[in-house]
Amino acid sequence: MDITLKELAPLLGAEIKGDPGIIVSGVADLQGATKNDISFILAPKYMAAAEKSQAPALLTDSVEIVSGKTMLKVKSAKAAYVKAMSIIMAKPKKQPRISPKASIPASARIAQGVTIEDFAVIGDNASIGENSHIGTFTTIGDGASVGAGTVIYSNVCVYAGCSIGGDCIIHSGTVIGADGFSFIEDNGALLKVPQIGNVKIGSGVEIGSNACIDRAAFGSTKIGNHVKIDNLVHIAHNCEIGDGTIIIAQAGIAGSTKIGSGCIIGGQVGIVDHVTIGDGAKIGSQAGIPGNVEAGAVITGTPARPVMQLRKAEAYMMKLEDLFKRVKALEISFKEKK
Amino acid sequence: MDITLKELAPLLGAEIKGDPGIIVSGVADLQGATKNDISFILAPKYMAAAEKSQAPALLTDSVEIVSGKTMLKVKSAKAAYVKAMSIIMAKPKKQPRISPKASIPASARIAQGVTIEDFAVIGDNASIGENSHIGTFTTIGDGASVGAGTVIYSNVCVYAGCSIGGDCIIHSGTVIGADGFSFIEDNGALLKVPQIGNVKIGSGVEIGSNACIDRAAFGSTKIGNHVKIDNLVHIAHNCEIGDGTIIIAQAGIAGSTKIGSGCIIGGQVGIVDHVTIGDGAKIGSQAGIPGNVEAGAVITGTPARPVMQLRKAEAYMMKLEDLFKRVKALEISFKEKK
Amino acid sequence: MDITLKELAPLLGAEIKGDPGIIVSGVADLQGATKNDISFILAPKYMAAAEKSQAPALLTDSVEIVSGKTMLKVKSAKAAYVKAMSIIMAKPKKQPRISPKASIPASARIAQGVTIEDFAVIGDNASIGENSHIGTFTTIGDGASVGAGTVIYSNVCVYAGCSIGGDCIIHSGTVIGADGFSFIEDNGALLKVPQIGNVKIGSGVEIGSNACIDRAAFGSTKIGNHVKIDNLVHIAHNCEIGDGTIIIAQAGIAGSTKIGSGCIIGGQVGIVDHVTIGDGAKIGSQAGIPGNVEAGAVITGTPARPVMQLRKAEAYMMKLEDLFKRVKALEISFKEKK
Repeated sequence: MDITLKELAPLLGAEIKGDPGIIVSGVADLQGATKNDISFILAPKYMAAAEKSQAPALLTDSVEIVSGKTMLKVKSAKAAYVKAMSIIMAKPKKQPRISPKASIPASARIAQGVTIEDFAVIGDNASIGENSHIGTFTTIGDGASVGAGTVIYSNVCVYAGCSIGGDCIIHSGTVIGADGFSFIEDNGALLKVPQIGNVKIGSGVEIGSNACIDRAAFGSTKIGNHVKIDNLVHIAHNCEIGDGTIIIAQAGIAGSTKIGSGCIIGGQVGIVDHVTIGDGAKIGSQAGIPGNVEAGAVITGTPARPVMQLRKAEAYMMKLEDLFKRVKALEISFKEKK
Repeated sequence: MDITLKELAPLLGAEIKGDPGIIVSGVADLQGATKNDISFILAPKYMAAAEKSQAPALLTDSVEIVSGKTMLKVKSAKAAYVKAMSIIMAKPKKQPRISPKASIPASARIAQGVTIEDFAVIGDNASIGENSHIGTFTTIGDGASVGAGTVIYSNVCVYAGCSIGGDCIIHSGTVIGADGFSFIEDNGALLKVPQIGNVKIGSGVEIGSNACIDRAAFGSTKIGNHVKIDNLVHIAHNCEIGDGTIIIAQAGIAGSTKIGSGCIIGGQVGIVDHVTIGDGAKIGSQAGIPGNVEAGAVITGTPARPVMQLRKAEAYMMKLEDLFKRVKALEISFKEKK
Repeated sequence: MDITLKELAPLLGAEIKGDPGIIVSGVADLQGATKNDISFILAPKYMAAAEKSQAPALLTDSVEIVSGKTMLKVKSAKAAYVKAMSIIMAKPKKQPRISPKASIPASARIAQGVTIEDFAVIGDNASIGENSHIGTFTTIGDGASVGAGTVIYSNVCVYAGCSIGGDCIIHSGTVIGADGFSFIEDNGALLKVPQIGNVKIGSGVEIGSNACIDRAAFGSTKIGNHVKIDNLVHIAHNCEIGDGTIIIAQAGIAGSTKIGSGCIIGGQVGIVDHVTIGDGAKIGSQAGIPGNVEAGAVITGTPARPVMQLRKAEAYMMKLEDLFKRVKALEISFKEKK
């Protein structure tokens, strides 16, 4: 869509410095922009790239002027460019379409505006909300439900009885509701503990590719609203993840652990079972969390400790050779003295 | 199914304290139980929850009495509730059904009682054992075999020539028999080493979602009987995993490593290639195993060490700042003394 | 295929010590070989196994003679056996076949010699190169392209607009081109940053099972030629991986990080976003990389450090209890002296 900067600026809360009559039809980064795109400069260090960019106009929150460019001053350049994309580059919604090659039983409830791609399988009594999208080779199990406006890509498995809220995005290969991993020893054999609960996912959740969220033994594994889960994350049975928490790629959360809202769990973090992570905690990449974490804590390492404390200890550790030599020297001097 | 405690108790080896005439029709945890459910108290710390529970009867191995409840004293409350579930809540087995939408060649051998869901693909000369279940979008490769009573969920790939024993459970997205990862440098290029072996999985094995078990270069990657493998685990080519070993989520085992029987491999553990882990070894979460591990060892850390030894060293490490100061003070005092 | 050692030797650059008239029809390891197979001894420690092997002839680069065997002396026994396999055991290429059960729109361009298995889905305007193979339940998105001679196994998702070069191998469950993981806070909510770029994969690339390579926010996530990526690897949006780099299982590379050519990234390694790893760097398993890494560096640990330096510091760390005692003793002696 073509739009003048004069029309665009109020939609972004932007102040124009330059030519408000410029017409743009796309949003692009500095390198990729053409004369028809608005671009953005996210920090002063990108000044040289900004000057070289073909974009006639730049969103900025950190730079006053770039020579030859019309500037749109905003509170957050990143938020502004995302909004500009949604305004300028909104894709025409494809016509909803239910493929005749999909497998849909009579008992399934399919709302208006739904797209179901080739070879998707919908279970008995499953429910698919308005305007949602079910990708190729995706299975929605018996009695499972998908909220309105949710997009599920290809090869996703939603096991029987699980529910997914509205406006979610679930990427390919993700598995929701497989059995939690639970066995008990019984006379030397491993007895499987039945997993008769389910998974309940809130609204506005995004889940990356090949993630695994297991169903509860009893009750539900619960993912709150607006939780964002990256690729290859493992969430075990009976976990609860609070609203707006972000879990980065390859992290693993063991069974029955409760994570508060607004937390950031770094990539490849491991958290043991049955612990509580307070609201707003930030856990550094690869950390190993052996117990409860207080709200607002900023920790890292295995076992995890406050970041500054750990970094200091590590620095001392790398100087140990010297310390051992100094102690040896003291011992010798002391002995000689005697 | 409705059952009196009097009928149930001998099946669980339980001693009743209270009313043997109570009828139950389900098993549930303390919070979820209704008046028709038997529940269980796994430790004295759940006393308050037990008292509040609606369940009229409780399985216990740790508590004598909960006021107002009939108690069923057992050796293991957890094993007893699992058994109670299999007695009371056994699902009526669905009628076996081979979907006309599945792709099944004439050369495949499909035993009695098999269910093959929509859009499953069975390879040439593949063999599917009695009463087994093949999920949607699952591929059983040419010449592969699946034992009796095995359940394979959706989107599983079993590559050509691999074999899976009886009474196994394989969750969605798991890949069995992809090529091992092996390349050699040859005049500066990377030459792929053909992987002409297969994967052989024993009986009673459970594998979680999105796990990967690679085929052998020669011979077989071997998974023993009753091995339990969690989500997102990686098992490289030519590994051998002994009977009853448990491998927790996101662990990775490099090529040709042999793990004994009855081991517990923690979540996110990494084990290098070509080493041997003795029977009954327990390896803590996130540990990195650079060499052989003795039978029965209990180790953790990267590189892994005996747990108590590592924890002690870590505690000293966190006190290094103080130690450096003390050595500095000694050095100054000593110099002054001279 | 039957071949005499006399015919085989020049193809492998081998010098025969023994009977050049021996005919072999297969390649196998020492244990698995029959009288009709050529085998190989990769190191002197396998001498006993070599003597017991049924193979009449052995490739070697480390052993002069094994009693009773004809030896073929080569520069690299491993490279030679791989080449011997491609000569002797080349599989007869299956007839190309496009399944009538696959979903292929008129707008897709399918070259000569392509095999498309049952229930594969090809997108609008997608392009599939000569002699390539598309497995069951694999989706090639709208406008995506696959080069000549590439083999894509089952349940792979290639999102719209991504491109894969020629002679690649992509194993089951791998997802190429899902959205990068990017959100910004905007008035307390998490705003999704649209990911309008794609993934471009070079030629000769192999990718294992259940790996994830995310599409770029703008531009392309780039995987160079001959890159080898193992199972369960995560490569975030806008990463660039140089030619011939090897990334071992379960490693994760965060957004916009650039890895040079000829690098080896160990299993379970984590690399933060926006850093540069120089050509030929080798990063040990489970390492955590918090910043740039110089070309040719050999590092490990979290945070990563030069291998020898880290190993030394760890060794000192395990002796800290002793050091604390020695310092305490010095302090006491010194006080007594005063």
